[in-house]
Amino acid sequence: MVEKQLSKIADLTSGGDGPGMNAAIRAVVRVALNQGVKVSGVQRGYEGLLNEEFFEMDHRSVSNIINRGGTILKTARSKEFATPEGKKKAVEILKKQGINCLIVIGGDGSYRGACELFETFGFPTIGLPGTIDNDINGTDETIGCHTAVNTALEAIDKIRDTAHSMERVFVIEVMGNRSGYIATEVALGAGAEEMIIPERKFDFEKMVGEIKEGYRIGKISWMVVTAEGAGKADEIAKTITNMTGLESRFVVLGHIQRGGTPTGRDRILATRLGAAAVDCALKGQFGKAIGVLRDEINIIDLKEATHKEYKHLDEYQRLIGLLT
Amino acid sequence: MVEKQLSKIADLTSGGDGPGMNAAIRAVVRVALNQGVKVSGVQRGYEGLLNEEFFEMDHRSVSNIINRGGTILKTARSKEFATPEGKKKAVEILKKQGINCLIVIGGDGSYRGACELFETFGFPTIGLPGTIDNDINGTDETIGCHTAVNTALEAIDKIRDTAHSMERVFVIEVMGNRSGYIATEVALGAGAEEMIIPERKFDFEKMVGEIKEGYRIGKISWMVVTAEGAGKADEIAKTITNMTGLESRFVVLGHIQRGGTPTGRDRILATRLGAAAVDCALKGQFGKAIGVLRDEINIIDLKEATHKEYKHLDEYQRLIGLLT
Amino acid sequence: MVEKQLSKIADLTSGGDGPGMNAAIRAVVRVALNQGVKVSGVQRGYEGLLNEEFFEMDHRSVSNIINRGGTILKTARSKEFATPEGKKKAVEILKKQGINCLIVIGGDGSYRGACELFETFGFPTIGLPGTIDNDINGTDETIGCHTAVNTALEAIDKIRDTAHSMERVFVIEVMGNRSGYIATEVALGAGAEEMIIPERKFDFEKMVGEIKEGYRIGKISWMVVTAEGAGKADEIAKTITNMTGLESRFVVLGHIQRGGTPTGRDRILATRLGAAAVDCALKGQFGKAIGVLRDEINIIDLKEATHKEYKHLDEYQRLIGLLT
Amino acid sequence: MVEKQLSKIADLTSGGDGPGMNAAIRAVVRVALNQGVKVSGVQRGYEGLLNEEFFEMDHRSVSNIINRGGTILKTARSKEFATPEGKKKAVEILKKQGINCLIVIGGDGSYRGACELFETFGFPTIGLPGTIDNDINGTDETIGCHTAVNTALEAIDKIRDTAHSMERVFVIEVMGNRSGYIATEVALGAGAEEMIIPERKFDFEKMVGEIKEGYRIGKISWMVVTAEGAGKADEIAKTITNMTGLESRFVVLGHIQRGGTPTGRDRILATRLGAAAVDCALKGQFGKAIGVLRDEINIIDLKEATHKEYKHLDEYQRLIGLLT
Repeated sequence: MVEKQLSKIADLTSGGDGPGMNAAIRAVVRVALNQGVKVSGVQRGYEGLLNEEFFEMDHRSVSNIINRGGTILKTARSKEFATPEGKKKAVEILKKQGINCLIVIGGDGSYRGACELFETFGFPTIGLPGTIDNDINGTDETIGCHTAVNTALEAIDKIRDTAHSMERVFVIEVMGNRSGYIATEVALGAGAEEMIIPERKFDFEKMVGEIKEGYRIGKISWMVVTAEGAGKADEIAKTITNMTGLESRFVVLGHIQRGGTPTGRDRILATRLGAAAVDCALKGQFGKAIGVLRDEINIIDLKEATHKEYKHLDEYQRLIGLLT
Repeated sequence: MVEKQLSKIADLTSGGDGPGMNAAIRAVVRVALNQGVKVSGVQRGYEGLLNEEFFEMDHRSVSNIINRGGTILKTARSKEFATPEGKKKAVEILKKQGINCLIVIGGDGSYRGACELFETFGFPTIGLPGTIDNDINGTDETIGCHTAVNTALEAIDKIRDTAHSMERVFVIEVMGNRSGYIATEVALGAGAEEMIIPERKFDFEKMVGEIKEGYRIGKISWMVVTAEGAGKADEIAKTITNMTGLESRFVVLGHIQRGGTPTGRDRILATRLGAAAVDCALKGQFGKAIGVLRDEINIIDLKEATHKEYKHLDEYQRLIGLLT
Repeated sequence: MVEKQLSKIADLTSGGDGPGMNAAIRAVVRVALNQGVKVSGVQRGYEGLLNEEFFEMDHRSVSNIINRGGTILKTARSKEFATPEGKKKAVEILKKQGINCLIVIGGDGSYRGACELFETFGFPTIGLPGTIDNDINGTDETIGCHTAVNTALEAIDKIRDTAHSMERVFVIEVMGNRSGYIATEVALGAGAEEMIIPERKFDFEKMVGEIKEGYRIGKISWMVVTAEGAGKADEIAKTITNMTGLESRFVVLGHIQRGGTPTGRDRILATRLGAAAVDCALKGQFGKAIGVLRDEINIIDLKEATHKEYKHLDEYQRLIGLLT
Repeated sequence: MVEKQLSKIADLTSGGDGPGMNAAIRAVVRVALNQGVKVSGVQRGYEGLLNEEFFEMDHRSVSNIINRGGTILKTARSKEFATPEGKKKAVEILKKQGINCLIVIGGDGSYRGACELFETFGFPTIGLPGTIDNDINGTDETIGCHTAVNTALEAIDKIRDTAHSMERVFVIEVMGNRSGYIATEVALGAGAEEMIIPERKFDFEKMVGEIKEGYRIGKISWMVVTAEGAGKADEIAKTITNMTGLESRFVVLGHIQRGGTPTGRDRILATRLGAAAVDCALKGQFGKAIGVLRDEINIIDLKEATHKEYKHLDEYQRLIGLLT
């Protein structure tokens, strides 16, 4: 019964962009069209929704985007949507446009908006985890998280050449305000000596002691990875220099971590999630967040898809210690 | 008791090389040394073992290799080791060298050797899954499998430029003799229209019909991904041209899929597995294959770590159909 | 006087596509528009011209393409255009469309067409060298040649990992039917031991002797680079195995060499050439081929822009010998 | 006569490291050895020279480094060498080690040292231009300059995804204290709207006016490239935000520009220069700087190899204006 009612879905991307969002859009559009459901693209996230920036998407709208970074739907912030009036207006516009279900690709801020549309205003929404921080509950991976780690590692591989040639301490700042996911994966994958993350207290004295001791026995270069939310690279580098006398350099990787061609894993994750979102909508399940848990599609309520802590923090920190 | 006996392990890489093997070697060496166990590197796999190509590895032996493709221990095939006499001799040499445990990084052929050393000759061995084919039982991922998929996708992204500019059918052959893992992931990740894999019968007539129909309604380029064990790219391209009249081109990606800088996921996987192998040896657990199942370390008997079928074949094939 | 007459140019890409063609199209379009000249894009090369596939290009038509491989104008072959009647018809269509000048981006086949339109039919044309083979007279570099070399080198860097790990002879076939440019640059840049090119006779016996001698004194891997027009990789590998007893592998890099993100040098080259083509048209100079010689824009008659031999062949061959 | 006297050369890398230095080292070592001259590697630049960190290099010392970033000889700064006493001591050590010629790979600071060793102390030296800034007289290109530009462009291609998805102004800071080479090439190659370089006065008011006007007519993203010596990215971004009301972001690419796999052009340039340095030494020509001018080897006196201005600044700035 319910399935018959689904005639038109809308999709938008919201919050920071991430690699793989386009692959998710492609999957949503094509899987929906192939099952007889129309798709309306919304430009510029919730802001564009309120400005009625809708356009009909066909099969060709998503040709040759599976390997493109960024999002063809663009993304933006919206102050108006943050208000109850804004959300009410959004629902009116969606209904006026004949939309039966809104699929939102974004991080936890975007999820809260989608959740409220459903819980408070009763409008059918579904969320896909599009954020490089991998900090969404109910899924082991988020769209873009693998690419961001690889991009950071590629950058660090270049820095390593100089670190080793010039024999210095390098402090590298990666993204992650509340989440140490990127910093942890990058530190372990780069073979860094130290990592500094928001979730754990960092023992600066201990690090300085280790660097001094290492230098004494002939170690010539160090890499320290810090999440932006845990410590600023320039200050950490300065302190290390002051406390050890060794030359330190810092690099803030910044926005390069958001862009670039998605890895295979992000493309496939995004494709699976996009297809599952349409399946979910066809079954009349709304107010849901789609994820992949233990390699299988996993569906939870949007209201439960809150911030999660990355589960490997302790294991990886122990490994970094054992490998130094 | 048993743990005290572990004083020296040996490690070797065997079979085809793959990205991440060096990260695994690094983890084995450093985690062992940091826990007071000596490590002996064996050059050139089982062949080198029989030639007594051992060398002591220290902390520095594995500096700056976490991001290097190939294997610093090199790899080779050995006819002598394939015989019972060869294996008997191998055990004698290992004992003579004072080795308490041999850690073998390789694919299923290498695993069978390690298994027989343990089951038949009673020598303590542990296996780490080092193969780009991801076809080992007891683990969701094998060292190198993610990088191989990404390498193939990067190559196909380049071919896509030409496919789209010149409006042609491209048939791309990827590795995989018995396993459709790479072909399946690559086909889905590249947005290919068709995939041909050893595990499934392929309906050639159906594909030709779809290409003809697509061409009729304006589709201008196709990508067909085939696993080497399922069909040769040149023959498939020829047949498509004969049956559709469209120009076809083929590319055999070949050995580029084995090399290159490992992705973050392969580096971390290799590191976790290498560390777990040493933990396993310290606990006196031998004849084991280490893997990662559902994102957690998983240990099974080597004799059970046989060929497995990639579990996503059906799901991904359905998706490719829905996305075309 | 003459300059005033230029009101509308057309541009097309022809022959094999190459990285940087889009950067050239972008430069032609924007430089022309910024100087008050309209631009008409022609789809699918000369074939599309004969089918009147023209569309007006504005500033946005070429946004975000400077870093894209392939050609947004697509390319094709045309049997009809190869005939005198075809060329006559092409001129009629160009006039009907109000075009004052046709800018052709392509290799020497495309140049011959553009030349004949000007010399025989008096229609104003200008050629830009778009070919990865770098075999056009009057220019030191052609659009795409640097990227093709880099792409081949990146692939070979991956193969090197395996070559070194498995201790084998690798024969790598690169593009170049009549031209040894790619093979020569790639052999020198990869540190290959041998190169086989169409312009020079190859001494197979000598190579086999060197490989045998190297093996005798402990050398464990070789790389032989061959241009497709000089020798097929599979046959060369087979012969080496037969004559030396060493295991050989081959890889045909194929179409990946045509695609991919253009290097900085190709982007800048294409941009300079595209701008110079418009300058040339504004000055009323037609029947010209634009190039960069000794780092400065260089303009010659299209009829002189024939096949050239790469000038570094001897120097680089000597270097390869000295470096092995 | 003179040629016979050359029996042993030393080589070192000095100043900031750059991609391609290893390819140059490889060429010096192998070309020298193949012509009967011994080679001594000096670790850590002039500092290591004063500490007598010499080691004999053979054919294998430089295996598999042609594609590696950084420098296997490492590099360092030396306060002692900066003094006359330091240089005198250096010459004594070189003589004691039996060195006939010192080949220095580095930037203009390193060149001044090599020049003084020759001019003041009469010790035979030769300089190779190893700096990513491309600011050395007598050569059109320096080792590493192409790779640095490509690395910056790859980073900006990723930022472009976000810039376009989020509709923002991005200010990107690249290396270049006195030299606008990287900034100029990168701005043109990235399709940036503005560039800010040390060699030209920048009209901030004009840029702000253009951004405002562009925004008025619908332009949604901007890229401004600044050389570190001309303006700091964070300050420029802040000013743009203040003056236009548009959101701005900044990225400082930093040390990633020094590292990474060298491009084909840098590898070949380094190889040619390394071989030419040995040829030069064999001919008894000392106190020379080797370069490539108009694609041919060019040799000038070290004392003339001072800072040069990049010759394309005006041409490229005009092009950027025409293309925006």
